[in-house]
Amino acid sequence: MAQYYATLHCSQYPRTCVRITSSSLADSNCRTELNMSSTTKESSLSGLYAMNGGGGQYSYAQNSSYQRGVIDVAKPVIEEGIAAKLDISHLSSTQTSTFRIADFGCSTGRNSFPAIQMITQAIEKKLITEKGLITRIPEFHVFFNDQLMNDFNTLFQSLPPQINYYAVGVPGPFHGRLFPKASLDFAYCSCALNWLSQVPKDVADHMSPAWNKGKVHYTGAKQEVVKAYSYHYAHDIKSFLEARAAELVAGGLMALLVPADPAFKSSATSFTTPTEIDLLGSCLLDMAKKGIISEQKVDTFNFPLYFTIPQELKEIIERSNSFTIERMEILDNPGKRTLCSAKARATYLRAVFEEMLTNHFGSEVMDELFDCYEKKIAASPHFLDPDNEKSIIIFVLLKRKAE
Amino acid sequence: MAQYYATLHCSQYPRTCVRITSSSLADSNCRTELNMSSTTKESSLSGLYAMNGGGGQYSYAQNSSYQRGVIDVAKPVIEEGIAAKLDISHLSSTQTSTFRIADFGCSTGRNSFPAIQMITQAIEKKLITEKGLITRIPEFHVFFNDQLMNDFNTLFQSLPPQINYYAVGVPGPFHGRLFPKASLDFAYCSCALNWLSQVPKDVADHMSPAWNKGKVHYTGAKQEVVKAYSYHYAHDIKSFLEARAAELVAGGLMALLVPADPAFKSSATSFTTPTEIDLLGSCLLDMAKKGIISEQKVDTFNFPLYFTIPQELKEIIERSNSFTIERMEILDNPGKRTLCSAKARATYLRAVFEEMLTNHFGSEVMDELFDCYEKKIAASPHFLDPDNEKSIIIFVLLKRKAE
Repeated sequence: MAQYYATLHCSQYPRTCVRITSSSLADSNCRTELNMSSTTKESSLSGLYAMNGGGGQYSYAQNSSYQRGVIDVAKPVIEEGIAAKLDISHLSSTQTSTFRIADFGCSTGRNSFPAIQMITQAIEKKLITEKGLITRIPEFHVFFNDQLMNDFNTLFQSLPPQINYYAVGVPGPFHGRLFPKASLDFAYCSCALNWLSQVPKDVADHMSPAWNKGKVHYTGAKQEVVKAYSYHYAHDIKSFLEARAAELVAGGLMALLVPADPAFKSSATSFTTPTEIDLLGSCLLDMAKKGIISEQKVDTFNFPLYFTIPQELKEIIERSNSFTIERMEILDNPGKRTLCSAKARATYLRAVFEEMLTNHFGSEVMDELFDCYEKKIAASPHFLDPDNEKSIIIFVLLKRKAE
Repeated sequence: MAQYYATLHCSQYPRTCVRITSSSLADSNCRTELNMSSTTKESSLSGLYAMNGGGGQYSYAQNSSYQRGVIDVAKPVIEEGIAAKLDISHLSSTQTSTFRIADFGCSTGRNSFPAIQMITQAIEKKLITEKGLITRIPEFHVFFNDQLMNDFNTLFQSLPPQINYYAVGVPGPFHGRLFPKASLDFAYCSCALNWLSQVPKDVADHMSPAWNKGKVHYTGAKQEVVKAYSYHYAHDIKSFLEARAAELVAGGLMALLVPADPAFKSSATSFTTPTEIDLLGSCLLDMAKKGIISEQKVDTFNFPLYFTIPQELKEIIERSNSFTIERMEILDNPGKRTLCSAKARATYLRAVFEEMLTNHFGSEVMDELFDCYEKKIAASPHFLDPDNEKSIIIFVLLKRKAE
């Protein structure tokens, strides 16, 4: 999956959506979950898109330097977390000689491979330090997961020639179970949990009060739309945590890097990722007005993305009850300084969204859509100043509780 | 990988090669292994082809009914073997809740999925019968392996909707290590061990006495060529067994279905798979004579395939010393009755060999090559009589010895 998490400076599209609080979320939990159960079967269909595959101009592999920045900034905290919190006692008790690591949302691997290298090296260091506790240093088995439609051929063919692990690909949505019970020692997920398992059903339903007519995301939308997204996010993270709780051994660690918004900001002077999605939405609306695509097509399309705030995420994790939060902090992302032109931003967005947009609107309108987007970006006087971008990455290190 | 194992009735190309005996092989073992070590680094390059991917006209998925016949005929012996020989004591001793199975040479899955279903059901039956020995019925983790260039995207997207296991893809050549030590409980390999890791170096070297000038395989070639293939085969099987011995738990089973020749046959009345390869070779030579491809191109091309005989395989396995042979028998293959026209045989062969041939001769000559082949097949009066086809499948059930 790997993520859409571009920055955007775009003052003509200020964010006006109402941020609902975590407490209001908690009140409505039961209803949310009831709603969700009816949509579970459809969620598998929602996985039929992925980042652009291969290695060409619009490929994710060539357009993910932004996400690479996330790993660079997370490196010291992950290393510290492993050194301080990794519990290797289960390795000796089960006499296993394998240490299993999974990356959830690896895409075609460009950012996953350096992250896995860093993680295996940190674990190796810890294992050597505590080698008195285990009979031998285990070998690493690394599981690269992404959606069924991810380009696993490119992933495998991009594996570095020298690696200190056995590599494996795991297809399927990470909101459900992907591994046998207690078969993983370490889980990692970077820039992927901002993707919902599917678009909240109500926002595309013209009979619902949450119908998101004339928009394609929750930015600047009515409160019901924002709530529908937020409920869905809480449900998805709950599903993700339940699946990982089943798959991780007791004491197993999970490092999450979650694209998010800061809790408070001024829309007059700062911008975050959802603003960029809204700008892309405005291009779709312009094209509908010109008759290039139908209005009905726009009304039935919504981006399945949600950017949480730290307090909201913390409360969802605490409710899950299977993990302890060992460390949680907010990281700034140096990656936002890597996309320095309107062209680069448009290409980047295309690598992430093209397959999904093509499925709904057809491939013939993609050039015009991203041309429009590039022009709108270029027309914004503040666009190239990354200091106005306030998106954050939440780092969370979780430990699986013993049952 | 999955296999080229077509039948052929083609009296104008009788097999004349000299079958060397297993004892003569054993005498030359040391030399063989010394030769091999110098070529190890190149073997990874030889994995840069695979069966035709996708699901189109010439895809392996649409042209592998022959290999499916192998699984049908092997089903009862594999089921009996699992019931009689599977040792599940290690599951209780390690308290693991996962049973790990690998299929080596799965291609895009069409024949692998039913085989894995049959294997998991047989294991499940055994586990339930002996459930007093284990604390709980484990979940299955199934690892689908094939060459790096295999079409894993098609494999994953072809997974049956209802499966009783967690599925994973493993890229890489099975002649080397692919899994951590003692991490597999059951290994399976069907119609894949007739593929060599690479063409024996000497047969393409004009300075060597084993230079295979004017031919593309060992059928009807001089004795040095046959020996070079046979030595290489012994080395490859040895490497395969060493890798699996490291990866399997003590007591773990391995079921092999190995395409082979019978020990004795009359070339006047019977034919085997290598004959078909020789016929394809004659088409390449015809095209070289017409100037469509260069003679030098033909002289430097050889098929990396070898068909053993039962005694030879048995001796290679016994020398490995890591496995006990629990069962070994010869199966007839009903699949040979599935390819009933010259067209079907040509298409089948194309699905298997096109990528490899294209890499060497270019894609522009493929249509003509397989047209020629189809015509030669159609011109043979005995071609459609499958009773003349004497190829066999050797079934071997091995158990990993305790160290």
